[in-house]
Amino acid sequence: MSKSSVVTVRETPVAKTSSASAGGLVVAAETIDVDTSERIEIVDLTDTVMRFVRASGVQEGLLSLWSMHTTCTIFINESQAALDADMKAFLDAIVAQGSYYKHNDPAHSDCDRQNADSHLRAMLLGHSVTMQVSGGELVVGRWQRVLCGEMDGPRTRTIRAQVMGIASAS
Amino acid sequence: MSKSSVVTVRETPVAKTSSASAGGLVVAAETIDVDTSERIEIVDLTDTVMRFVRASGVQEGLLSLWSMHTTCTIFINESQAALDADMKAFLDAIVAQGSYYKHNDPAHSDCDRQNADSHLRAMLLGHSVTMQVSGGELVVGRWQRVLCGEMDGPRTRTIRAQVMGIASAS
Amino acid sequence: MSKSSVVTVRETPVAKTSSASAGGLVVAAETIDVDTSERIEIVDLTDTVMRFVRASGVQEGLLSLWSMHTTCTIFINESQAALDADMKAFLDAIVAQGSYYKHNDPAHSDCDRQNADSHLRAMLLGHSVTMQVSGGELVVGRWQRVLCGEMDGPRTRTIRAQVMGIASAS
Repeated sequence: MSKSSVVTVRETPVAKTSSASAGGLVVAAETIDVDTSERIEIVDLTDTVMRFVRASGVQEGLLSLWSMHTTCTIFINESQAALDADMKAFLDAIVAQGSYYKHNDPAHSDCDRQNADSHLRAMLLGHSVTMQVSGGELVVGRWQRVLCGEMDGPRTRTIRAQVMGIASAS
Repeated sequence: MSKSSVVTVRETPVAKTSSASAGGLVVAAETIDVDTSERIEIVDLTDTVMRFVRASGVQEGLLSLWSMHTTCTIFINESQAALDADMKAFLDAIVAQGSYYKHNDPAHSDCDRQNADSHLRAMLLGHSVTMQVSGGELVVGRWQRVLCGEMDGPRTRTIRAQVMGIASAS
Repeated sequence: MSKSSVVTVRETPVAKTSSASAGGLVVAAETIDVDTSERIEIVDLTDTVMRFVRASGVQEGLLSLWSMHTTCTIFINESQAALDADMKAFLDAIVAQGSYYKHNDPAHSDCDRQNADSHLRAMLLGHSVTMQVSGGELVVGRWQRVLCGEMDGPRTRTIRAQVMGIASAS
């Protein structure tokens, strides 16, 4: 049984930005770089994402946020220093970093990051959110923030934002 | 460090309903109000969502359901009284309401709802689902139900449903 | 209180394949059958999904993957035999199969599969992912794989893949 992870290869790399339109439909995308400084860290992407949606000109449609990494997550929650600390403590408690994992064992794995806990935590949080756009803005509640949950930092992470919809309502 | 949570402010509030079309593409949305009566409660939205999709006239496309709240979730599962009880018991067990959380501590937080457990449970379940529409109806399996998981009720909650797609197949 | 689960009935069954276009927008879908051989099993769908996207001709848009089952999940992670074993062990640990569940108790449930643990595990992983398409290919990171997590096999499972977007960029 192989100790290696499967590599995904596109024919061409994902473009940093992309844009297409047809018959009133617009699809536009850009990449957001996130620099993290801790092993587990929660970065608030909301303002960046809201600016991207407004700049796109899309009035009614969908917004997709996609983390390009297995140990970097995207999810929705409140943004508060106290709650951030609670979320990190919960992730530490629910997936113990120090337990035995095959992924961390050279007898079974060629990965040297010792980050099985990061993969399991990411499995719980997910790697993307798909949101609505309406009235030219992101549909989001008063206390909702779009959060990037770094599970194996510090690193530079790439998030791709794509908006798809009708640019001018008729 | 601030004890407060960040507030998200759109330039204009999310419209109760919205609708746009261009070149055969339709985007239509409406809000669904959900009144809950327990702290943790599972509300079945399936019939409401199926009616919304049929009424929209969209034949092939996507349906987005978005909870406008941090402690109100949307997810898929079977709907049965016995399983509802199991899901609630599991959420109680996996995130202990009575543990110490900074979010519940006035020294660190200005939130007076004492609902850190609600935030953590919502982090596990997620706040939205994006589904397919085909043949003018929601794509959903025989035992799948679209569930709204209240994590901090009783409250009145707002869910936004948006459908985007081709209104008449060509 | 009923011991039964609610059944979802569409007016017509979901078509095995569907396709529509209007004004440059294309929506195309097909079903992917997955045969599993273990109770908990992780099946890598990435290559199948990438082929489907390329064949659709959609250049910029969204890809939805939907499991038609309550105890069959779809999520993103790395694909490696060692990590697969860690993920299964974690799911076993976080939701104990042998605990008491009302869903498994004939006094409360008419389900004879004894699979409450499968439902709870699926609640954590989710039943769908919505991904981006750009440059005619799936947007996916080097180590990301699209995984189908069987939680109550062995069974034959149905996953529906739908792509929606602009077929030729302008």
